[in-house]
Amino acid sequence: MIVVKVGGGTSLNIDAVVADIVALRAKGTELLLIHGGAQTTNAVAEALGHPAQFVTSETGHTSRRTDRRTLEIFEMVYCGQLNKMWVEKLQVTGINAVGLSGLDGRIFEGTRKDTLRIRVDGRRMVLRDDWTGTVDKVNVDLLKTLIDAGYFPVLTPPGSSTAGEAINVDGDRAAAMVAGAFNAEALVILTDQVGLLKKFPDEATLIAAIPKAQADRFMEFAEGRMKKKVMGAVEALAEGVGKVIFADGRVDQPISRALAGAGTHIS
Amino acid sequence: MIVVKVGGGTSLNIDAVVADIVALRAKGTELLLIHGGAQTTNAVAEALGHPAQFVTSETGHTSRRTDRRTLEIFEMVYCGQLNKMWVEKLQVTGINAVGLSGLDGRIFEGTRKDTLRIRVDGRRMVLRDDWTGTVDKVNVDLLKTLIDAGYFPVLTPPGSSTAGEAINVDGDRAAAMVAGAFNAEALVILTDQVGLLKKFPDEATLIAAIPKAQADRFMEFAEGRMKKKVMGAVEALAEGVGKVIFADGRVDQPISRALAGAGTHIS
Repeated sequence: MIVVKVGGGTSLNIDAVVADIVALRAKGTELLLIHGGAQTTNAVAEALGHPAQFVTSETGHTSRRTDRRTLEIFEMVYCGQLNKMWVEKLQVTGINAVGLSGLDGRIFEGTRKDTLRIRVDGRRMVLRDDWTGTVDKVNVDLLKTLIDAGYFPVLTPPGSSTAGEAINVDGDRAAAMVAGAFNAEALVILTDQVGLLKKFPDEATLIAAIPKAQADRFMEFAEGRMKKKVMGAVEALAEGVGKVIFADGRVDQPISRALAGAGTHIS
Repeated sequence: MIVVKVGGGTSLNIDAVVADIVALRAKGTELLLIHGGAQTTNAVAEALGHPAQFVTSETGHTSRRTDRRTLEIFEMVYCGQLNKMWVEKLQVTGINAVGLSGLDGRIFEGTRKDTLRIRVDGRRMVLRDDWTGTVDKVNVDLLKTLIDAGYFPVLTPPGSSTAGEAINVDGDRAAAMVAGAFNAEALVILTDQVGLLKKFPDEATLIAAIPKAQADRFMEFAEGRMKKKVMGAVEALAEGVGKVIFADGRVDQPISRALAGAGTHIS
């Protein structure tokens, strides 16, 4: 099993991902797809007059503010516009895709972080009415039931809190948890970068490989978003995933290339 | 099995429908839910600068123009905003809901009507790039697989063309086909009316019952939207559904009341 996570960047080559899934499945590779949609969500939120807001936590971590209206727009884009776009593109090729969010059947279940302690201009504030959380558990049974019956699951955030509420969860982490639950051979994360870069955005500084044992040392100089990605990858490996690959989702045959060595391999 | 179709009117009492589903399931009634979303779609389409358009066919039938952008907005609202709202409300009560469109696993499969012959100011025109169709087939296997595994399916348009394209399909007809495929005891269609009215909108003219044998005679004086509803009900009965009930979705215990005799019963 190869778990493929496709980011929400609008420069990704969706048709190339679909064609590659068809080609890999024809060769007998079992796959599972998880997609994001952050960039499109920002555009739709803007168009609907409720633009994305980002907040900085007391510990300096930046995250999306997910009030109830943001959650609704998030669901419109992730579960409606984009999930059904992926399902349609796959159905047209003859793959019997079934699109589900992590809320459906509690596929991504986790803990809601209902209060967010933030800093605004140096002042401490507590935000309530926030709908974010972390995936703790994957409902593998539902996914296996669908796969065994011949369907191809296409997953997307949000997830479900333990109380059944919709929560905005990180797609990379959800994908890592799914890959771990299946003891996947590889988790391929396709983004609009060639892989992890030592000096962003200089593609010449691509890091081809990070051995798991060196991940800690690597963290010392990794920053922000890359740090989070490497941490996520190390977690996925700890969950039983064979390797995590960050690769370019803008090119032809993006999954095959990643499996053949392109991008950053963490193992 | 009782199949419940909830229309897309914004005056419907969603929480009452959910509470009634919980109560009926607790008594051992097996249920399946299908929802619409036309009214919300119109509002979102307006907000996104692509307002709903309606066209009149050569035969005088009015339908929604579904160009590609309309289809996308339709999916945002039906599959994203509303389907996940229903799933969340059900999950919070402890019902393990799984929301799916008719495109997923081709649950509602049918024929795309890719050209639409219309009349505009007396002139004939042919519209291409239209994404509507009719449900011919229901994928009962996927629904049974989910129900047998303990999940509660929450279905919504669009459907899938035979080629796997998303198509805007009529929710009432899709619900009738699902009810037929399950040989359902009843199909309950909840709307923002007390039932079918002889003289719309006068609620005193509620038609309590239409025996199947008299449906033809009834059609003679039925008009427009009601005619379509009665025709759909007769089709559902022909498919093996025990009875079709049009009932008020704005009240408490709307499904239980309908099953107990409220609304218009066609059998």
